[in-house]
Amino acid sequence: MKRLVYCLICLCVAVMTVSAQEKKAFTLEDVIPGGSNYANLVPKNLPGLKWWGDVCMNAEVEAVKSIQPATGKEQVVFTLEEVNGVLEAARLGKLHHLFNVTFPYADKQVLVSTPTHRVLVDWEKKSVVWSQPIAPHAAHQDWNKESRSLAYTIDNNLFVTTADGQTHQVTDEPKGIVCGQSVHRQEFGIYKGTFWSPKGHLLAFYRMDETMVTDYPQVNTSARVAVLEPDKYPMAGMTSHQVKVGVYNPATRQTVYLEAGDPTDRYFTNVSWTPDEEHLYVIELNRDQNHAQLVRYNAATGAKEATVYEEKHPKYVEPQHTLVFVPWDESKFIYQSQRDGYNHLYLFDTKANVPAARWQQSTRSESTFIEHVQVTPLTEGDWLVQQLLGFCPSRKELLMGTTEVSPLQTSLYRLNLSTLKRTRIGEEDGTHRAQLSASGKYLIDNHTSFSVPRVISLLPTDGKKGRVVFTATDPLKEQYNLPEITLGTIKAADGKTDLYYRLIKPVNFDPSRKYPAVVYVYGGPHAQLIHNNRFYDARGWDLYMAQLGYVMLTVDSRGSDNRGLAFENCTFRQLGVEEMKDQVKGVEWLKSLPYVDGERIGVHGWSFGGFMTTNLMLTYNELFKVGVAGGPVIDWAYYEVMYGERYMDTPQSNPQGYAGSNLKLKAGQLKGRLEIIIGGEDPTCVPQHSYTFLRACIDAGTHPDFFVYPEAGHNMVGTDRVHLHEHITRYFEDHLK
Amino acid sequence: MKRLVYCLICLCVAVMTVSAQEKKAFTLEDVIPGGSNYANLVPKNLPGLKWWGDVCMNAEVEAVKSIQPATGKEQVVFTLEEVNGVLEAARLGKLHHLFNVTFPYADKQVLVSTPTHRVLVDWEKKSVVWSQPIAPHAAHQDWNKESRSLAYTIDNNLFVTTADGQTHQVTDEPKGIVCGQSVHRQEFGIYKGTFWSPKGHLLAFYRMDETMVTDYPQVNTSARVAVLEPDKYPMAGMTSHQVKVGVYNPATRQTVYLEAGDPTDRYFTNVSWTPDEEHLYVIELNRDQNHAQLVRYNAATGAKEATVYEEKHPKYVEPQHTLVFVPWDESKFIYQSQRDGYNHLYLFDTKANVPAARWQQSTRSESTFIEHVQVTPLTEGDWLVQQLLGFCPSRKELLMGTTEVSPLQTSLYRLNLSTLKRTRIGEEDGTHRAQLSASGKYLIDNHTSFSVPRVISLLPTDGKKGRVVFTATDPLKEQYNLPEITLGTIKAADGKTDLYYRLIKPVNFDPSRKYPAVVYVYGGPHAQLIHNNRFYDARGWDLYMAQLGYVMLTVDSRGSDNRGLAFENCTFRQLGVEEMKDQVKGVEWLKSLPYVDGERIGVHGWSFGGFMTTNLMLTYNELFKVGVAGGPVIDWAYYEVMYGERYMDTPQSNPQGYAGSNLKLKAGQLKGRLEIIIGGEDPTCVPQHSYTFLRACIDAGTHPDFFVYPEAGHNMVGTDRVHLHEHITRYFEDHLK
Repeated sequence: MKRLVYCLICLCVAVMTVSAQEKKAFTLEDVIPGGSNYANLVPKNLPGLKWWGDVCMNAEVEAVKSIQPATGKEQVVFTLEEVNGVLEAARLGKLHHLFNVTFPYADKQVLVSTPTHRVLVDWEKKSVVWSQPIAPHAAHQDWNKESRSLAYTIDNNLFVTTADGQTHQVTDEPKGIVCGQSVHRQEFGIYKGTFWSPKGHLLAFYRMDETMVTDYPQVNTSARVAVLEPDKYPMAGMTSHQVKVGVYNPATRQTVYLEAGDPTDRYFTNVSWTPDEEHLYVIELNRDQNHAQLVRYNAATGAKEATVYEEKHPKYVEPQHTLVFVPWDESKFIYQSQRDGYNHLYLFDTKANVPAARWQQSTRSESTFIEHVQVTPLTEGDWLVQQLLGFCPSRKELLMGTTEVSPLQTSLYRLNLSTLKRTRIGEEDGTHRAQLSASGKYLIDNHTSFSVPRVISLLPTDGKKGRVVFTATDPLKEQYNLPEITLGTIKAADGKTDLYYRLIKPVNFDPSRKYPAVVYVYGGPHAQLIHNNRFYDARGWDLYMAQLGYVMLTVDSRGSDNRGLAFENCTFRQLGVEEMKDQVKGVEWLKSLPYVDGERIGVHGWSFGGFMTTNLMLTYNELFKVGVAGGPVIDWAYYEVMYGERYMDTPQSNPQGYAGSNLKLKAGQLKGRLEIIIGGEDPTCVPQHSYTFLRACIDAGTHPDFFVYPEAGHNMVGTDRVHLHEHITRYFEDHLK
Repeated sequence: MKRLVYCLICLCVAVMTVSAQEKKAFTLEDVIPGGSNYANLVPKNLPGLKWWGDVCMNAEVEAVKSIQPATGKEQVVFTLEEVNGVLEAARLGKLHHLFNVTFPYADKQVLVSTPTHRVLVDWEKKSVVWSQPIAPHAAHQDWNKESRSLAYTIDNNLFVTTADGQTHQVTDEPKGIVCGQSVHRQEFGIYKGTFWSPKGHLLAFYRMDETMVTDYPQVNTSARVAVLEPDKYPMAGMTSHQVKVGVYNPATRQTVYLEAGDPTDRYFTNVSWTPDEEHLYVIELNRDQNHAQLVRYNAATGAKEATVYEEKHPKYVEPQHTLVFVPWDESKFIYQSQRDGYNHLYLFDTKANVPAARWQQSTRSESTFIEHVQVTPLTEGDWLVQQLLGFCPSRKELLMGTTEVSPLQTSLYRLNLSTLKRTRIGEEDGTHRAQLSASGKYLIDNHTSFSVPRVISLLPTDGKKGRVVFTATDPLKEQYNLPEITLGTIKAADGKTDLYYRLIKPVNFDPSRKYPAVVYVYGGPHAQLIHNNRFYDARGWDLYMAQLGYVMLTVDSRGSDNRGLAFENCTFRQLGVEEMKDQVKGVEWLKSLPYVDGERIGVHGWSFGGFMTTNLMLTYNELFKVGVAGGPVIDWAYYEVMYGERYMDTPQSNPQGYAGSNLKLKAGQLKGRLEIIIGGEDPTCVPQHSYTFLRACIDAGTHPDFFVYPEAGHNMVGTDRVHLHEHITRYFEDHLK
């Protein structure tokens, strides 16, 4: 890993040499998403690039072009005007661009969605092949290309419109019971609530009963008289919602529910269909989140058939991926697990039962597991699989993105499922976002790195040289005077783990000066602030602060993402403690730099980073002079059950851990200047966190500052985001400069 | 008036000369109510002083003394120990002090209230004469000394416990209908909801139906999960509550309601019993508040008997006083009205009907009125009656406090009802809070002024010399180095009206320096910030800011209290406009002072003063650099019906006035630094005011600051108040110094 780091630093220095002094200064409107000039200054992209079989299609505003991966030949296949001509003649609405057209079939048909209809258009014949009305207010639309059935929700209930245009009301539940939508607050990889069987004959869906969950009283102040908009929010240790999985059969208009037993305090995750549509797999997790079970159900009857696999960990197990069946052998599927310390792929052979299965101990982590079918590890090592891209059936290969080269980047690999040999595809360092073609023979590789604004290639997966179809420049780098950004590692507080840092020096850096410095922090699980990507992921605000004369530091401390299970779960039951120790290591290193004024260190972060910022200002109150904490967690007892209890258990079972991370109890320790900023209707870190903290400070006689963005949620977006960063900047300018 | 001003300035200068430089500096804990040392530094008082017939009783913690006004002879009449001995023997509870004992009868009985009982104790015989249980959670207790019946509320319903201990549930209304409590949001002089007839046989009470009023969603964040605590809050122009007046007869256990007709959009104010208990008077007001009617009802049947008097004004009529019957002729009562431009007393003779009554025009104001009985003005002139203290029947005199000497002070007068000759009682300038003895022959005169910390005298009302019973010192003045405080007048923006100002120079004033200055402002009706009183009413924070080196100015602009109707109602339908012009006159004068830095002018105010502060920061954004606005009105459409519509009419009928005073529409004009501070559950200026203003500023790209005191109401009290003033001070220190 070190090799890469230094290599990247070289790149950076090389790039930075180009930044001549005569270039322009930028404003927050230039560098903050939502700013009036932001979109003009980021490297361009081709957002509509997608596969039609093995032909790459570039869907843009006015036209869709085909690009042949073998020859590079480009051709306009149809235009917006042509599609709208067809749509308008049939009175099926109109499109404003072609970005979202899809190519579900092998023939010359394109699927488009207007506000009122889903339509298959034949682009050669310029005719409507088929259309389906979309009900007004239909949300969470989920369309199956085989049956052409559409699932959707209206309010809290689920509906289906079949290919013939008939509408089925699948559920008729009272308010408080939500069907067909994401459950468990989007944890465990859940992002939707409907799951069509592969051929579209059956629809699995979530049904969530929230009637027993406490309402959090959010208030919308924009009405004539402010109105209550209550939000079901189960807080750590309190009564949670109950989830069931139903299966609806449009042919019989019947629903069966999986016979999973009492749903109290259980999570039903990663619903997966077998290719034959006869079975459903669900990964089930207990409320303590330390015991996952892979269970198979009969899709027709809902009966429980078998528990195929179980996994435990003394801290937590976190299933996040649905099963992926091997296309050339539907009795096998890929299961992803961190049981060996990093997220890896395991091949489950459902035909190979293990009759005398017993609990086993991982040799690489504290996990234990029991395999009731034969399981073959496909990958292993101190790196992790980030993305399973699909398969190349002709070569019996699996395609994936992994951190094997560096945890700072995603590299592409093919893995032979017979030999388990894996081969890197492409050699360019940086981040590769890829889409696999139908045959698995080609990848659209969207490549970015610190030194590469963007290069999009069509890559043969067999290792042959790819074909570049798009190269972007970086207008911000070209036109503006940017700061020097470097990357490196320091040792964590455990004395052994390498932590990545990103350091930004002030624009027009003068080594003889003493600059104030600000740490931008997150520190929580599932986030990593530093990648081998544009500016090493430095945000526009970091650049802006560097332009104003601040040194900016970010350290991805223990507890953060892409470094494996032990790196993450060392924070278990005591969030903040180890993370802060690592941040302090970063600050100690910062203070060792001759051009940093150690008396003027600030800190800023949002959400978990707001928790960290507030905690650092209170706990290390001699180290930090000024902090701005956005949407902070103040007391994990106010956070929700799923995320909160995974890392903290419950307030009842871990009173010491909750007390140790309850920032209200440290309110009297505030010495520097701390501003708390929240969205007035934050549904994630509810406003109660910050209000109870202010109350604790007032009672303790300390003086934080506070600001609220009324009507905003957990994050400020659009022009609010520019305003927010003006506000944050002003606070540091007022008090740290 | 000018004579007084200069006279007061002389006093002030004389006093200030005594403030030697070697005295101590004070902290906010010393000078802010709620501060740990505040109570030690204010002039002492005798809070338990009251009359027993014509004997003055001094009720203190441990003992009650009698003081004979004629001789000054003092004598302990009973002790706490003795009273508690009697109470505890009878198992009737215990008192912690004697401040609240009262002397309702001419014999040797004292009325005390323990948490569980109301008890009459004979202090000579040391025995319980009578006792009455108090129901747990009984609120709004109202006891009648003649019948010894107690009226009280539990939740929203009204109860009576009669002298024999029997409990009557008077009303049994569902939630949303409130009985026996104050109505119309405490406007129109209303402060309670029960009215015993003089002999205690009948109980008049308010019944308020709020079911049709919109809930304002207040949120209490101190619960385990934040909880909604909705508050019925009728906003300007919206549906208001409906009030009825009931009369309960404990003897028959029957209630009749006054037959007042449809209660929609009407105010029923100043409920008054006739001495014979046979009739009730109510002053009824239309929703537009420009037409008051004095109506008499039959108390036994509820039938409407007569409209005795009516008054109109093109802007508003504001009845605030109950009728007071003349003790020696119960067919006559005193009515208070501003119909001649100032609050004056009018004698109504109910026996002298005026058969051909017609509308008349006041010669001194725009008021018109119709008198159906004979009305004799008792007082007149460009000053007002502040308090009707009672009567001296033997001399046929009325006793009152008025502003005749100066609007800055209350002076005591007796008025002969036959000759209408009025004679001042006592000659000391300043504020006189008085209690009249049973015969009307003596006053307890609690006198304070700029130069007099406190002198309490027993004053014969016949003009003879009084007897001083208590003299206080001012520990703050004696021990601490205080700033120089002066008083004067400037011309209002109308070019003719004199406005009073109070100017505080920095402690250890150096005329060669240039000081920043802060205007402390209120500006709304019913408030006057400057009196001939301790520090001319300057608050501890003003002194503290002067100690920190600020010049502090306050101007009572047009629209404020005690200067008459035209002075107040020039702001009608356009709140803020004239008031701000006058404040600007103050600032122009301030900037003319050689020691004021005109580039560093700040402004601070709360409630209406928060509205003024915000408005000044936006409207006169070149004049003010820093402002702190507490609990501000931002948009009068969010304020309540009674106060709001009196001064602004409705948003429907006065769209231009509402737009002109809607500070959201000026959000883009913010140039200086403005902090808004609110109580998180402010029930008066609901949080929506400030949140919508922040949203407007964010959308307009301007940057106010904000702070909230969670769980607090419209004002911060106790230790919160000290914290608040530290917070406000810091804002000026950060940005104005």
